Amino acid sequence: MSDFEPRTLRGFRDYLPDVMVPREAMLQKVASVFRSFGFQPIATPALEYTGVLLGKYGDEGDKLLYRFRDNGDRDVSLRYDLTVPLARVMAQHGGAIARPFKRFQIAPVWRAENPARGRFREFVQCDVDIVGSEGLLADFECIQVGAEVLRALGVDRFVIRINDRRILDGLMRHLGITEQGEQTDVLRVVDKLPKIGWDAMMAELRQKVTLPEHGEVALKTFLEGGLQALDGNVVDLSVAQPGIDSLNQLLAYAEALGIRRYLDVDLSIARGLDYYTSTIYETFLLDLPSLGSVMSGGRYDKLLGMFTGESIPAVGISLGVDRLLAGLTELGLVPPGVGAPDVFVVIVEAGETAYALGVAKQLRSAGLNVQTSLEPGAKMGKQFKLAARTGATAAVVIGSTEAATGNLTVKMLSTGEQKTLTAGEITAWVKPS
Amino acid sequence: MSDFEPRTLRGFRDYLPDVMVPREAMLQKVASVFRSFGFQPIATPALEYTGVLLGKYGDEGDKLLYRFRDNGDRDVSLRYDLTVPLARVMAQHGGAIARPFKRFQIAPVWRAENPARGRFREFVQCDVDIVGSEGLLADFECIQVGAEVLRALGVDRFVIRINDRRILDGLMRHLGITEQGEQTDVLRVVDKLPKIGWDAMMAELRQKVTLPEHGEVALKTFLEGGLQALDGNVVDLSVAQPGIDSLNQLLAYAEALGIRRYLDVDLSIARGLDYYTSTIYETFLLDLPSLGSVMSGGRYDKLLGMFTGESIPAVGISLGVDRLLAGLTELGLVPPGVGAPDVFVVIVEAGETAYALGVAKQLRSAGLNVQTSLEPGAKMGKQFKLAARTGATAAVVIGSTEAATGNLTVKMLSTGEQKTLTAGEITAWVKPS
Repeated sequence: MSDFEPRTLRGFRDYLPDVMVPREAMLQKVASVFRSFGFQPIATPALEYTGVLLGKYGDEGDKLLYRFRDNGDRDVSLRYDLTVPLARVMAQHGGAIARPFKRFQIAPVWRAENPARGRFREFVQCDVDIVGSEGLLADFECIQVGAEVLRALGVDRFVIRINDRRILDGLMRHLGITEQGEQTDVLRVVDKLPKIGWDAMMAELRQKVTLPEHGEVALKTFLEGGLQALDGNVVDLSVAQPGIDSLNQLLAYAEALGIRRYLDVDLSIARGLDYYTSTIYETFLLDLPSLGSVMSGGRYDKLLGMFTGESIPAVGISLGVDRLLAGLTELGLVPPGVGAPDVFVVIVEAGETAYALGVAKQLRSAGLNVQTSLEPGAKMGKQFKLAARTGATAAVVIGSTEAATGNLTVKMLSTGEQKTLTAGEITAWVKPS
Repeated sequence: MSDFEPRTLRGFRDYLPDVMVPREAMLQKVASVFRSFGFQPIATPALEYTGVLLGKYGDEGDKLLYRFRDNGDRDVSLRYDLTVPLARVMAQHGGAIARPFKRFQIAPVWRAENPARGRFREFVQCDVDIVGSEGLLADFECIQVGAEVLRALGVDRFVIRINDRRILDGLMRHLGITEQGEQTDVLRVVDKLPKIGWDAMMAELRQKVTLPEHGEVALKTFLEGGLQALDGNVVDLSVAQPGIDSLNQLLAYAEALGIRRYLDVDLSIARGLDYYTSTIYETFLLDLPSLGSVMSGGRYDKLLGMFTGESIPAVGISLGVDRLLAGLTELGLVPPGVGAPDVFVVIVEAGETAYALGVAKQLRSAGLNVQTSLEPGAKMGKQFKLAARTGATAAVVIGSTEAATGNLTVKMLSTGEQKTLTAGEITAWVKPS
């Protein structure tokens, strides 16, 4: 017997079946939508040379690496995300990978953060990306995939807020704010508008940066007028125009594909200025806005070439797996009995075990998930209690009469309704198609 | 641009789609068989307190741990297998887990071994276990699940060799070999019989241990006579009899369930004397015997209670994921085009992009996996080349005529055969059900 107290590390979790089953069901639906667009899965190692990862996430990110020396004294780290490993893959296997490379990866990543509500040191990322295509159709496909994923999960009330980095650049240029630190400050303050109101926002803004005379009006028009209001008095069009055209084209595609109603241009969203190069999006569940974005991404043309210097255009989305599952659960979109067996076979007489196993086999062949009692001959009450605890839809009771006649007693566990059926008839009653 | 040479660590691998797609397809089938028996998935953290893992794998195993101090100076290690974490789960969440607990876990483990052909430092384990049931039916269910997994993967020519630890104990007692080190030596030498012949084996055996006078005859009967020949002259029946009865009952169940032909009693298999307590099995593909065991396991009633001292009976099987996939591939049981899209949509005129995306959407709704060109209006030859490279079954060509009439040109990429069809007719031709 070990004298070590068995426990998980802080910030790490076990997923027992009650959480794991709906999670797997969700991820399977997600992967199936990805596949329907021709995306294919890849996997990369959990451990990488630290040199591959270091310097890619900024100082703050670097500090969060699980970094150590392995038995061969190599400096190694657990992966922090799935994007830098993708960049490594493109550099290492680039010649063998046809482009556009449409890949998805669903895998854990590790960050030595301070754990907090909803923030863990190990969590699953779900990324889908198109690598090697500059065309706007790739951006649209990512948005469309995102919308189809949510629809496949039963969500219809959601909004994908889209923006274009180049429009933000056009605004900054017009406001004369060229330094990235200042740009980030502006965006962070602007983000507070709904909470603190216009005057407080402007006051804070003026503390951070020096705005030109025309700045306040331009900013007001930018934030209130939307895409239609953008002109030379609001943004520097030499920078912003391609972004404006691009958003309009994305909306036109969405209109044609019947998903326009999910899209909303929001010029205030930014998401990592040092990362995205044009299209940006994030997604909110309309009935749970406080949940935060469940799916976000955009185009990042400068990142994947980090190892080779080669330009590798890329666009993608990332699903917040745990957040989305929490949302689906709260919205009642996770069926409660998911993962429970359809049938539990109660074996009343131990002598009929082989017959009972044969019935179970037959039911499985008909497509049912079937759990059989592992204590044949145990008291009926005990076996029924176990059947109920598994969450099974129905129990099939097998004793010598049933084995002799083939007429089986089937009981719906939720209602107590009972019928006598042959094995062949059970599926239709328990799991009507 | 990073100045670090992008490469994977030795003993670690990227799985690109050509490997990953058949692998995922295989694991999905495996999980689906597990579920059909009422097994449910769990997940545990990659990192554990070293104290949880240490001392469970013997000195050799402990040396293979990826062990380090995290940022909070905790002594942590990457998991080495999925069994010790399961023992921790039972100790930590035991009260919340109803027994029998039927769980499966498919996840990577890490071992700082010397990489060799087929041996990696990161590899996926696939374990299915029944925890908390002492009954032989649980042992049989694991064997049955194993057989059904292989059948679901298209394999019919395989043998599950079964044995019972208690029969080996009965032999050892009869031979007067009580020390575990000596027992291991005997089993290791006996294992060489097919290669070196009886006399050489006996000579080597006598160097290692002192056999009683009746030892050679007993051993010969044991190895050649099989289950039927076991009596008091061969094994100590007070120890071996429960094992003999147990194997006979397993064979009877298998007979009743129509899987007897896959089972073979092999009294020479041992698999970890300090681990298994009764039933033991390992599985070989008849057409690829040199591949080694693709699926093995048994009952291990003394291991899971390691943290609490509580007795937690358990029986399970473990699938050699990579080995099995290699075997399936060699046997031609992995369809070559697996994971490729059904249809690639070639967009001849950029103005018809929205129409083409609509067709793609319609085909997806009909159940097809559809990849669309991301370069609408690019030269036909280029788009067809890309279509062929994706491995798509068919290409659908869309230009202004197609958009105006709804009559689409569909070309089978393998044969070149071409038809003019409406979107509604395409599915039936490309993917007949």
